[in-house]
Amino acid sequence: MTAQQVTIALDALGGDYGPPETVPGAVQAAREGIRVLLVGEPQALEEELRRHNALGLPLRVVPAEGVVQEGEPPLQALRQKPRSSIALCARLVHEGEAHAFVTMGSTGAAMAAATLELGLLEGVERPALGGPILGCAPQTLLLDLGSHVDCRPGLLVTFGALGIAFARRFLGIPHPRVALLNVGAEEGKGNRQAKEAYALLKASGLPFIGNIEGHDLPFGRAEVVVCDGFVGNILMKLVEGLGEVLAGWLRQRLPHAHPLAEEMASMLNVVDLYGGGPLFGVRGVAVVGHGRSRAPTIARALRTARRCVQVGLVEGMEEELARLTATPSRREGGENTPPKTGDPSPSPPPGDRR
Amino acid sequence: MTAQQVTIALDALGGDYGPPETVPGAVQAAREGIRVLLVGEPQALEEELRRHNALGLPLRVVPAEGVVQEGEPPLQALRQKPRSSIALCARLVHEGEAHAFVTMGSTGAAMAAATLELGLLEGVERPALGGPILGCAPQTLLLDLGSHVDCRPGLLVTFGALGIAFARRFLGIPHPRVALLNVGAEEGKGNRQAKEAYALLKASGLPFIGNIEGHDLPFGRAEVVVCDGFVGNILMKLVEGLGEVLAGWLRQRLPHAHPLAEEMASMLNVVDLYGGGPLFGVRGVAVVGHGRSRAPTIARALRTARRCVQVGLVEGMEEELARLTATPSRREGGENTPPKTGDPSPSPPPGDRR
Repeated sequence: MTAQQVTIALDALGGDYGPPETVPGAVQAAREGIRVLLVGEPQALEEELRRHNALGLPLRVVPAEGVVQEGEPPLQALRQKPRSSIALCARLVHEGEAHAFVTMGSTGAAMAAATLELGLLEGVERPALGGPILGCAPQTLLLDLGSHVDCRPGLLVTFGALGIAFARRFLGIPHPRVALLNVGAEEGKGNRQAKEAYALLKASGLPFIGNIEGHDLPFGRAEVVVCDGFVGNILMKLVEGLGEVLAGWLRQRLPHAHPLAEEMASMLNVVDLYGGGPLFGVRGVAVVGHGRSRAPTIARALRTARRCVQVGLVEGMEEELARLTATPSRREGGENTPPKTGDPSPSPPPGDRR
Repeated sequence: MTAQQVTIALDALGGDYGPPETVPGAVQAAREGIRVLLVGEPQALEEELRRHNALGLPLRVVPAEGVVQEGEPPLQALRQKPRSSIALCARLVHEGEAHAFVTMGSTGAAMAAATLELGLLEGVERPALGGPILGCAPQTLLLDLGSHVDCRPGLLVTFGALGIAFARRFLGIPHPRVALLNVGAEEGKGNRQAKEAYALLKASGLPFIGNIEGHDLPFGRAEVVVCDGFVGNILMKLVEGLGEVLAGWLRQRLPHAHPLAEEMASMLNVVDLYGGGPLFGVRGVAVVGHGRSRAPTIARALRTARRCVQVGLVEGMEEELARLTATPSRREGGENTPPKTGDPSPSPPPGDRR
């Protein structure tokens, strides 16, 4: 598949600003050869399109009715609005009209629509949220970022496998490492969940390097850091708040439009880097970005989605999950048992372990 | 009690550097009228003292034997070394020879020594760790920072009461607010622990303002933020790591010794502000600082300990805990039951609620 052939459905109504930002974002991506289906209210979209020099670009409007708002109970809203922009986006992927969809709308709605229309990979119960949270450590993914709280320890192994697929395929890191976010470096540290997850990760066949602590995160000491979504979400949002406060402080302290303030913002803020992140564990590419994204960020999210398609992210995730399932500790129901010596299950390639 | 009368036992062997930093730290504090008992190996201490102009200062060496190292199992180590510097520090407070003790040594050993020698306040199971974690929000305490993981929800109420005492007495904030660190603003969000803690906090009589999220922390939207120590520890250490990375980056990008880099460091790093924090819930003042503290930070920790004594921090904590115990939800065993209408238990003063 060449870059030219990727078609992406964009939820043109999702996000805080709607068509005035989604349409120019789509136009920008279309100029780079991405085919974009603009899913939303046709009149508003056509009108916005006329404001841009979009003639001849691979853009097409797909009429939708209504939008699922942030805060609406997702499943109920999807049932009530079966032709809402997010529902239609997921359906276009399901029906093969698009290779991926992108939304800046409600994450809950995107997760529900993706689950219903595209389904989940084997062993996944709901889409996981993950991605780099620090601009200064852009190759360190944190999973989960809030879709799973009170995880059973085995889920952290699943996050590890999903993250590894992203690190290998999307980031192109040949030997990514998985670490467990914990309160101490030594084995045996942490809460019950972390202690059990440690044992399961150790036996999982994943390239597990042990615990890392909060202060390791900015140094990028692992590519995939797994944690409960309760912790991940609070960390991600703390970094967001810090970025705002610190960049604001630096802007105030430095002469007008000093590049350092922007550089500082980018040390923390990472959303702008990819425009959004894929839903992990979904049987299809669904990229979700921040509601407050503007056109350039939306264009980046479209590029991210294209790359997820081109590198075969979904196949990669499937592969990593299958490899896990083949290890004894998972076959035996996620029990905390080390792999048996001489077990015939396929071992990971040598490069997988560090 | 005047400033002159406070006597503090300093664990002169604790910390990464020992007497070459603890002694000048003590000298500095003694110049401000704090009586310091230097607890440690007498020869090394006398030798170090001779290097400073300490004549006539209120300093006295108290001979100790050995030191509990970071990483030693604290209880076992204390049993094996009953005259170690940390054990002796706590005993001096217990015996009324000192009003407080300060250590830069093993936190675990300090907690164990404080618990054994000084005891815990009613309703407290082990000392809690707490304090501000962000220089840009110096009046926002986070509790717990790592001594309690897998907290039962009722413990978060205890943290709230202990934090309120610190905010009122030490920081002098007349109407501090308690918030629960969570993944969403609305009631009903979060993991099981947070959901149950929310209900208990609501019924506790504490000035509880609801959930706050990670991005609220740098803005100081509450004075006391309660969370499980697993989360608090990871957050605190992330901030520590970020401070290092960001200040390092700014130092590199700005001309030599530019004040902005130091200012940036102080936006994140908060340890230097107070030199250390008290162990919450202990029946006595025990201030623990970072192992890598240098003399000026150690002097600050001694000042912090003096202030804890002068403002009656322990009495304040006792008071706040007693007030809690009197509310119905606690009397009934921490069950998730709202207070009964017309219940005769004393209500908090009007200033306590916002």
